Amino acid sequence: MNVTIWNEYRHEKKNEKVREIYPEGIHAAIASYLGEQGISTKTATLDEPEHGLTDEVLEKTDVLVWWGHIAHDEVEEEIVQKVVQRVLDGMGLIVLHSGHFSKVFKRLMGTSCDLKWREADDKERLWVVNPSHPIVEGIGEYIELPQEEMYGEFFDIPAPDEVVLVSWFTGGEVFRSGCTFKRGNGKIFYFRPGHETYPTYHNKDVLKVIENAVKWAAPSTNKRPVFGNAKPLEAVPQR
Amino acid sequence: MNVTIWNEYRHEKKNEKVREIYPEGIHAAIASYLGEQGISTKTATLDEPEHGLTDEVLEKTDVLVWWGHIAHDEVEEEIVQKVVQRVLDGMGLIVLHSGHFSKVFKRLMGTSCDLKWREADDKERLWVVNPSHPIVEGIGEYIELPQEEMYGEFFDIPAPDEVVLVSWFTGGEVFRSGCTFKRGNGKIFYFRPGHETYPTYHNKDVLKVIENAVKWAAPSTNKRPVFGNAKPLEAVPQR
Amino acid sequence: MNVTIWNEYRHEKKNEKVREIYPEGIHAAIASYLGEQGISTKTATLDEPEHGLTDEVLEKTDVLVWWGHIAHDEVEEEIVQKVVQRVLDGMGLIVLHSGHFSKVFKRLMGTSCDLKWREADDKERLWVVNPSHPIVEGIGEYIELPQEEMYGEFFDIPAPDEVVLVSWFTGGEVFRSGCTFKRGNGKIFYFRPGHETYPTYHNKDVLKVIENAVKWAAPSTNKRPVFGNAKPLEAVPQR
Amino acid sequence: MNVTIWNEYRHEKKNEKVREIYPEGIHAAIASYLGEQGISTKTATLDEPEHGLTDEVLEKTDVLVWWGHIAHDEVEEEIVQKVVQRVLDGMGLIVLHSGHFSKVFKRLMGTSCDLKWREADDKERLWVVNPSHPIVEGIGEYIELPQEEMYGEFFDIPAPDEVVLVSWFTGGEVFRSGCTFKRGNGKIFYFRPGHETYPTYHNKDVLKVIENAVKWAAPSTNKRPVFGNAKPLEAVPQR
Repeated sequence: MNVTIWNEYRHEKKNEKVREIYPEGIHAAIASYLGEQGISTKTATLDEPEHGLTDEVLEKTDVLVWWGHIAHDEVEEEIVQKVVQRVLDGMGLIVLHSGHFSKVFKRLMGTSCDLKWREADDKERLWVVNPSHPIVEGIGEYIELPQEEMYGEFFDIPAPDEVVLVSWFTGGEVFRSGCTFKRGNGKIFYFRPGHETYPTYHNKDVLKVIENAVKWAAPSTNKRPVFGNAKPLEAVPQR
Repeated sequence: MNVTIWNEYRHEKKNEKVREIYPEGIHAAIASYLGEQGISTKTATLDEPEHGLTDEVLEKTDVLVWWGHIAHDEVEEEIVQKVVQRVLDGMGLIVLHSGHFSKVFKRLMGTSCDLKWREADDKERLWVVNPSHPIVEGIGEYIELPQEEMYGEFFDIPAPDEVVLVSWFTGGEVFRSGCTFKRGNGKIFYFRPGHETYPTYHNKDVLKVIENAVKWAAPSTNKRPVFGNAKPLEAVPQR
Repeated sequence: MNVTIWNEYRHEKKNEKVREIYPEGIHAAIASYLGEQGISTKTATLDEPEHGLTDEVLEKTDVLVWWGHIAHDEVEEEIVQKVVQRVLDGMGLIVLHSGHFSKVFKRLMGTSCDLKWREADDKERLWVVNPSHPIVEGIGEYIELPQEEMYGEFFDIPAPDEVVLVSWFTGGEVFRSGCTFKRGNGKIFYFRPGHETYPTYHNKDVLKVIENAVKWAAPSTNKRPVFGNAKPLEAVPQR
Repeated sequence: MNVTIWNEYRHEKKNEKVREIYPEGIHAAIASYLGEQGISTKTATLDEPEHGLTDEVLEKTDVLVWWGHIAHDEVEEEIVQKVVQRVLDGMGLIVLHSGHFSKVFKRLMGTSCDLKWREADDKERLWVVNPSHPIVEGIGEYIELPQEEMYGEFFDIPAPDEVVLVSWFTGGEVFRSGCTFKRGNGKIFYFRPGHETYPTYHNKDVLKVIENAVKWAAPSTNKRPVFGNAKPLEAVPQR
């Protein structure tokens, strides 16, 4: 299985606090962990040609992980369309944190994907509400993050196929933090935590969920269904 | 529409604190409110003959509201079966708070319906996660209850058809607090709040949700489908 | 409640067979029926200025019914965006037959919405698989249409919130023919039948489903949730 | 992974036609195939002590496959309760064909599980409506069975978590033929085909679906959540 981790990679370059936490970028932290688990990974970032997502890269990618925040608008329409098409054709997609506002995710959801937020060092608890789901394999009753950005409901997404995790925040909010969707042949997992100023992608439970999600989202070997003008049964037995 | 509010009606008799809040019982508080909204109501309680749920009462009930807690085991099997059958035939069912452990609800869910709990005067916020659902018509972003018993995940229910409300509690938990299910022709709404030592059923938002739920759960006029040995199409045109 | 029925209105103008069935257009047939049920209706068509969907019309529309087929590409992007936004803000949307390929529906679904099809006078049976759903109120076990265009699976849509009707076709196919979705505050119902060369919109069961769907999709009076930067609880009680 | 295939094993003993198709029983045919795929299998039948489902057998079973028809009533309550409990604790369950009326399945669903049926050598086509689901890995657009018993809607089950296959029958009916459910920690798959007088369990696509389902239903290693009286967060930071 080949996983490509895409990162906007801007905060790390201009914010020292972020760079201290992720010296080589959020993508590198995630790729490093997945690599240790024996998963073949590549990374790609916004400022590379074609955002690092050339046809060749996309063609070989089984699951794409996406982190973006301040530069959603800079992602070129042509690349967005290719990524969306690959998802519909079966590529898995893991959307992290502020990726809820990425063009790719909004296009696949059809809604605004808007939500409440607050940067105030809230404590977050992500409660498992679907304990035997493969995405939370090995996770206990909840994941606790001592400090995170708050995301609160109403989260304007279609009803997820499955809600796996629900977050609690100190300041009084809840959030559907781990949600699965299927679009075409592609499996999608939205996973909330990961504000750039906290070491969330060094948390072993968070990384374990990403690893599980990547495995869960692996493409089926099934061909896409044939659409179009169909012939009837050759002969329906007369009754 | 005829609504029957069923209450165990035991706490109110033996606990002065509860009696102060609900002098005539929880059922009477809910019935009084619904009556003011122009809904025809009856009440029924555990210690009446047949628990107040005679064939005649059940036959005329469009929606049944259920509150029980310490005496689930005293509800007779024969009545449980009749109520379950009426739900499958189309009667609406609103299950309140500790009714999650009632025989009727567990029978319809097929799971343990177990959960975490704590009596510690938690503040509760019930967040609306499905804002245009008729059950939350007229409700703002959340309902706040200054003091309630905590119920926490994992709530061992089947995946609800719809999750309408998710609770936040001071002590660190979340809970799927407003959930819809359909079983047979019957519409079911589970609604979490309502511990007997708090004036929850005097809260106007809580009452409004119950009113909305009752209207939403009204039976269809559709007949139950005919099951059994079916004849084929008289003649399938040869192609 | 104000319902606007939108029709491409091209087939009726150039195909005599269609014009015989719907002399004043498909929109007029549906509007006429809904009007008889006491529902306030307007119609709008592709070749009117702004496709008949001016800001004023959209603002006053509670539920929009959409039929389109050969001219999806001619619907202007600006109008598509306004319609999509109105749906997210709460306007109901009933998408009929070949409207599965309309820009509006594809935008809201996020998938290709592709399917199999065949014009061969198949008999169609639409089986009710959710008998107490308000959309099939008054409908028996199935609706039978002696001749229709076939639509077959795989229908490339997100998993519907509810599947209400499933079609059988003589030639050997099945199709999820009545599906509900919610996007933002808007309720959406996709309803399969209605090829222009058959008198499907004169069938009383088909019309009854459209009437039911229109009522089901009526907007909530709830305001849209407030998004953005949120303040925390003023004081979380120390425990 | 250990799979136990349970079969009523009565038809094969008294009906020569069935015995010709399944000389050693339906369970043996399925076990033989799964064994060839490298899956460790056991079989168990109604007339063994404890129906072959002793505590030891159940404890070691990861996924239970269930075929029953004419003797549902003979399955002892004590065994039913143990099987249901094991499912809630995480054991997978694959319910085949007339197992829809088994005590185990009805208990887990909470509904009547009734349906239409006809023995008339209908041709059946099981259409894949969820093509990238692991349960249909390797299956084409549909599975065709030249002769089968018809099962028709309305199938009185709760809304499945996922509908994977929908059947078409010559005589004019449709049926949700492949449905997933989760109850407690246990994954359940209902799979329609398999009337005893047809060689359905020799069909390679049917066997492939059973193999896929068994793998999909494998238990999580997650412990069951701890329920009951919960302590709050030690200290919620004052804000």
